[in-house]
Amino acid sequence: MGEFKRDLQAHADAVETLLLEVLPAASGPQASQAPQKKLHEAMRYATLDGGKRLRPFLVASSAKLFDVPEHRALRVGVAIELIHGYSLVHDDLPAMDDAPTRRGRPSCHAAFGEATAVLAGDALQSLAFEVLADPATHPESEVRVALVRLLAIAAGAAGMCGGQMIDLEAETKRLGLDETIILQRLKTGALFRFASESGAVLGGASSPEQAALAAYADDLGLAFQIKDDLLDVQGDPALAGKALGQDAEAGKATLVGLLGVDEAERRLAGLEASAAHHLERFGTAAWPLRQLFAFAIGRSH
Amino acid sequence: MGEFKRDLQAHADAVETLLLEVLPAASGPQASQAPQKKLHEAMRYATLDGGKRLRPFLVASSAKLFDVPEHRALRVGVAIELIHGYSLVHDDLPAMDDAPTRRGRPSCHAAFGEATAVLAGDALQSLAFEVLADPATHPESEVRVALVRLLAIAAGAAGMCGGQMIDLEAETKRLGLDETIILQRLKTGALFRFASESGAVLGGASSPEQAALAAYADDLGLAFQIKDDLLDVQGDPALAGKALGQDAEAGKATLVGLLGVDEAERRLAGLEASAAHHLERFGTAAWPLRQLFAFAIGRSH
Repeated sequence: MGEFKRDLQAHADAVETLLLEVLPAASGPQASQAPQKKLHEAMRYATLDGGKRLRPFLVASSAKLFDVPEHRALRVGVAIELIHGYSLVHDDLPAMDDAPTRRGRPSCHAAFGEATAVLAGDALQSLAFEVLADPATHPESEVRVALVRLLAIAAGAAGMCGGQMIDLEAETKRLGLDETIILQRLKTGALFRFASESGAVLGGASSPEQAALAAYADDLGLAFQIKDDLLDVQGDPALAGKALGQDAEAGKATLVGLLGVDEAERRLAGLEASAAHHLERFGTAAWPLRQLFAFAIGRSH
Repeated sequence: MGEFKRDLQAHADAVETLLLEVLPAASGPQASQAPQKKLHEAMRYATLDGGKRLRPFLVASSAKLFDVPEHRALRVGVAIELIHGYSLVHDDLPAMDDAPTRRGRPSCHAAFGEATAVLAGDALQSLAFEVLADPATHPESEVRVALVRLLAIAAGAAGMCGGQMIDLEAETKRLGLDETIILQRLKTGALFRFASESGAVLGGASSPEQAALAAYADDLGLAFQIKDDLLDVQGDPALAGKALGQDAEAGKATLVGLLGVDEAERRLAGLEASAAHHLERFGTAAWPLRQLFAFAIGRSH
């Protein structure tokens, strides 16, 4: 696991470097004169220095199967982080989850005000599509526009936003197991799936290869969510950088709440076997994807 | 003007029809089972039955100069309306302009709640890019991805969102004339410019042709804003479907406030002459674009 963690950290550093490049500048003579400077600052605050960058690592690991140049996968990874970052900013808003902190520091609206946080999220979403559409992402326009379309679907009403809507409704309406799994598939699963598939799209892979990576990502996304729920019940708030037990307190149905801890852990093992099965066709080249799965379910925060 | 208004109305009807097609369904057995049904309803509420559809008409009129099939221009027009609609939903939020009504009915958050309004705006933005990236918009991926990139830039931090940020800051910081013009160029001008340029992109026009249409749109956008400010001072609230005089009340600098009514009207005439100059190269084919300008500055609401 040591080697994998080093790879993950090195990749996260590369994500950070490219984010710094694509985000609007925050310093320098040009930046300090920009009348929308505060928006730029909020966009940077929301996306820089954040998280483990698992989604971009998933793009990179999937793209590596098809010998895609690293910088192309990295650009797609950055586009996903921009979407993921915007969704966290909006989810944290007072009208949504009302979260005062995120990753151990004030959430974006707590730091910049609500209006700026709404706008920063909006502009981050636009920037994600700008990054994908840029010729630097891939020389073939056919590939770039395919990525735009897939990401738009993954982020929208049939994906991430749809999942967040179901999550909001779950505050007043008790969800069953099937509905909770649909919620997860949309809210967090859709972006994982896009990340995994995008490697295949960048590499001009066959449909069965793309489908296998999508299926792997579905297992990974669900496992990731179950692990999150388990950590919310059992984890250490200091490591998490946020208050725990909030889902239960908000009366929200979670997979662990519905399944119980023992059954949830059994499901994790089942998902790991299923994920490994989907990766078989790629042989030893899928090592990073196997490690990523092990990491997602083995992490302590 | 009668013929023009009939053309405008017929085109607005076509926009409505295509919007109904691309928006997530609200009725029927499939729709009523969708767990994110409320999100779909809010997205429809925010975009259907709304406004004069001037931006899509601008796309269509510009595209017509290059014999672009109408349905292609219409798809780009719909993408712009999805962005425009999302921006109105977010601008109306309590943390932003706190507008209880829009087009004579409750604003989206007043009707659906704040959280759903945030999400509906987010999902509408994703949908705009999905519509552009779809092969139905243009058979060539090079054209589709160019449109995605231009729209992403127009909607983001260097365009619409940046302008809205400057507008928010203007509540506490008095803007001068130059800054107020920059504000307008970003907040509303960027989408007008994209609309006008997109006709050239769809039609494979030359760079000078695209630049002429961009320059025309800059004049149109500024004229449109000056007229809006004039109507806010002089207009009829019943026709506008909203309270007037709010900019002055909020202490916001407006072009009319800074220039005075007489000078603002002189500028309108200057912009009309400048716009006509940019359209000269297109001859009589630019009739709809000239009429659109006349309409924008002649309207009573």
